[in-house]
Amino acid sequence: MDNNVSEQILQEELQTLAANGKIDSFREKFLDMHPYDQASFFIEQPEEIRLNIYTYLSPEETAGMMEHIELDDIKPLFTEMDPRYAAMVIEEMATDDAVDMLNELEKDVVVSLLTIMDAKNAAEIKELLHYEEKTAGSIMTTEFVAVYESKTVQDTMQYLKAEAPEAETIYYLYVVDEDKHLVGVVSLRDLIIAEPDMRVADVMSEKVLSVSVAKDQEEVARMIRDYDFLAIPVVDFQNHLLGIITVDDILDVMEEEAGEDYSMLAGVSDKDSPKDSAFISAKKRLPWLVILLFLGMLTASLIGQFEEALEQVAVLAIFIPLLAGMAGNTGTQALAVAVRGLSTGDYGKQGKLRLMFREASTGLINGIVCGTLLTGIVYFWQDDIYLGMLVGFSIMVILVIATLAGALVPIFMDRLNIDPAVASGPFITTINDIISILIYFGLATMFMQYLV
Amino acid sequence: MDNNVSEQILQEELQTLAANGKIDSFREKFLDMHPYDQASFFIEQPEEIRLNIYTYLSPEETAGMMEHIELDDIKPLFTEMDPRYAAMVIEEMATDDAVDMLNELEKDVVVSLLTIMDAKNAAEIKELLHYEEKTAGSIMTTEFVAVYESKTVQDTMQYLKAEAPEAETIYYLYVVDEDKHLVGVVSLRDLIIAEPDMRVADVMSEKVLSVSVAKDQEEVARMIRDYDFLAIPVVDFQNHLLGIITVDDILDVMEEEAGEDYSMLAGVSDKDSPKDSAFISAKKRLPWLVILLFLGMLTASLIGQFEEALEQVAVLAIFIPLLAGMAGNTGTQALAVAVRGLSTGDYGKQGKLRLMFREASTGLINGIVCGTLLTGIVYFWQDDIYLGMLVGFSIMVILVIATLAGALVPIFMDRLNIDPAVASGPFITTINDIISILIYFGLATMFMQYLV
Repeated sequence: MDNNVSEQILQEELQTLAANGKIDSFREKFLDMHPYDQASFFIEQPEEIRLNIYTYLSPEETAGMMEHIELDDIKPLFTEMDPRYAAMVIEEMATDDAVDMLNELEKDVVVSLLTIMDAKNAAEIKELLHYEEKTAGSIMTTEFVAVYESKTVQDTMQYLKAEAPEAETIYYLYVVDEDKHLVGVVSLRDLIIAEPDMRVADVMSEKVLSVSVAKDQEEVARMIRDYDFLAIPVVDFQNHLLGIITVDDILDVMEEEAGEDYSMLAGVSDKDSPKDSAFISAKKRLPWLVILLFLGMLTASLIGQFEEALEQVAVLAIFIPLLAGMAGNTGTQALAVAVRGLSTGDYGKQGKLRLMFREASTGLINGIVCGTLLTGIVYFWQDDIYLGMLVGFSIMVILVIATLAGALVPIFMDRLNIDPAVASGPFITTINDIISILIYFGLATMFMQYLV
Repeated sequence: MDNNVSEQILQEELQTLAANGKIDSFREKFLDMHPYDQASFFIEQPEEIRLNIYTYLSPEETAGMMEHIELDDIKPLFTEMDPRYAAMVIEEMATDDAVDMLNELEKDVVVSLLTIMDAKNAAEIKELLHYEEKTAGSIMTTEFVAVYESKTVQDTMQYLKAEAPEAETIYYLYVVDEDKHLVGVVSLRDLIIAEPDMRVADVMSEKVLSVSVAKDQEEVARMIRDYDFLAIPVVDFQNHLLGIITVDDILDVMEEEAGEDYSMLAGVSDKDSPKDSAFISAKKRLPWLVILLFLGMLTASLIGQFEEALEQVAVLAIFIPLLAGMAGNTGTQALAVAVRGLSTGDYGKQGKLRLMFREASTGLINGIVCGTLLTGIVYFWQDDIYLGMLVGFSIMVILVIATLAGALVPIFMDRLNIDPAVASGPFITTINDIISILIYFGLATMFMQYLV
């Protein structure tokens, strides 16, 4: 509580200083904050105050803050900045962050920023912009320290002192031969413990894991997590060292991928943000809803086929949402378990067949329990044992098939090399609506003579 | 492809060596692998081979491998090991990993292991076992290097050389005064650049962020991600340095929390694993299904209230699943956006009201589009403009209220200090089934004269 109050006082103070052009006092207070806190403050300000702040900060200071601003918020900032200043800010950023930001901007804006920039920096960034989104190449940085296997520990430590301020990390050092092939890795920890006159080649570990530039970022994240790395080197197909990926970028990748999976399960575009306006948010969600509307019409026309049965036994309609709902629920459960299993790589080769068998069995067990319960409840409620048996038996069959469907859809998608997370909850729910209605009315028609 | 083949050959080779007691060749090949790969191989072996392997490895070597085994798989391993050996393995682990593993075992097993252990190690572990699950205290390690502000850079580097092999990280060093109060932080990078005779107090940054032992692990993860830290110090309420949390543990926390949110949205227990048997998995999912079955009965009895309307106009039943399904879908979308927003802390203070207004507007826009579409489709299909208008108008009202309900439930839970992720998809879907049926049949009853 106390903290929040003092934070708010500080924010108001900063705002006043920025609005009134008190450059020195503003700089003193502002630069005393962590760049993340600077970014949080900055992004809440109106444009006129932001424009003031740019003039108070050096491009380097702005760059440090910008690296902590969320990518969704980047575009308006680079549009309002003076292009010359914007180019300098980008030059001061870590290359991987610069590339992430440029990917958010319009193509012609990027081209004009790169033109103003120092040619060497521009070339480095252009190189990285070529890599496909969500690959190792697109998230790596080229600001790393490579050390040579033939150097001594002492020389290397000297070299580090000079390079440390620029590099993204100096705690894992990748060792290259004279042709820039990756040949080993040595941690700063090992160098500190080693004798100063040993050669790097004698201290390094030759068992260095690397990823190819084209590797999917989700797989890179999994490797870093499994092996507890602080960084991983990125190589081309001839094993030349191109860049490194550090763990702080992996945290963002994991957050992004988890958010995507979560949103897909709910049938929302992964870019649906609580900050969007109602129109934008409606536009993002409508495609799903319209697809589901048409799938729902399919369900409706299916029930239409059974209108005769419904006219004879109107009470049948009572249980439609219950059965469809249960089918949707069990399907979503099975779907989630399968998607998680596929995305964390928990399955072996025969694992998928075993999973399908297990899901069918799970559905059967749940079906027997729910079916028995439901038969009893409907019997006591409607005083009709045949209706009870129909509904109870229907739910049993529905739970087996709907559970299996929930597991099958993502496995099938994975086989087709589609991200299984695309099999969203609403989609499987609607499929299972159809399954449940076919089973329920199919059984009802078969046993119609007992119901009327 | 090539890689997989050579990996499989290596695995078969290791298996043969382990089965036939070729200790030396086994050790040579096995210890040459990364501990994570050791763990992946080990966990796939049958018990008799695992028992052999324990006898080939020192407790320290086993500990290194154990740290990479998933917690779900830990229990049988510590049960099959000789207790004396198990105690030694735990002593060799990083304390935070040791505590994680002990938390997976039965209480009496833990007590007996701690009794066999060296008293000092046991005391350290017992201390950590006291912290509540999912707090900073439960994931921190006590193996960190604290340096004193009064020492020189040179002395500190000497001290590091000695301490480095044991510590979890030496890249961020936390500075304490003589009473062990946390007073600053210095990175190894800064020490390397600094002059050897400077005092630590002159090199360190006094702006050190820390977390309290009782802080929720999800918030710790968010801090480390936002500030791009490699580690964060943990303090008690008097600011004594108790331990540190490193980024590799945060990767696991993020994976765990994302998995939990995802599972909750699908209505599965977060411990539902693809490796469970059908019985265990059914047992985990049944509670949800039974709750939803009873909620579904509520829906059924609601429709039962409108049986008269249904008997007059059987065609009404056709659209029940469509409307209920759309209500569920839009509710799940709104729910997911709200839960994500709450969990990433994207909302300000007035943000929640704004979000509710936005969700209602989004629902209205989507409702108008879907309603118009549906009126047209139903009119052409059933050749009944009144039925078309009823269904179209119903979906419009339903989409507004169901979207709002999806956003409101998690916000309301958050207000009650319940994790909003608990508001699962199936739950909101069932609530929205009820809402949609009330609206649809309510409107149908009101306009019955136009329908018959």
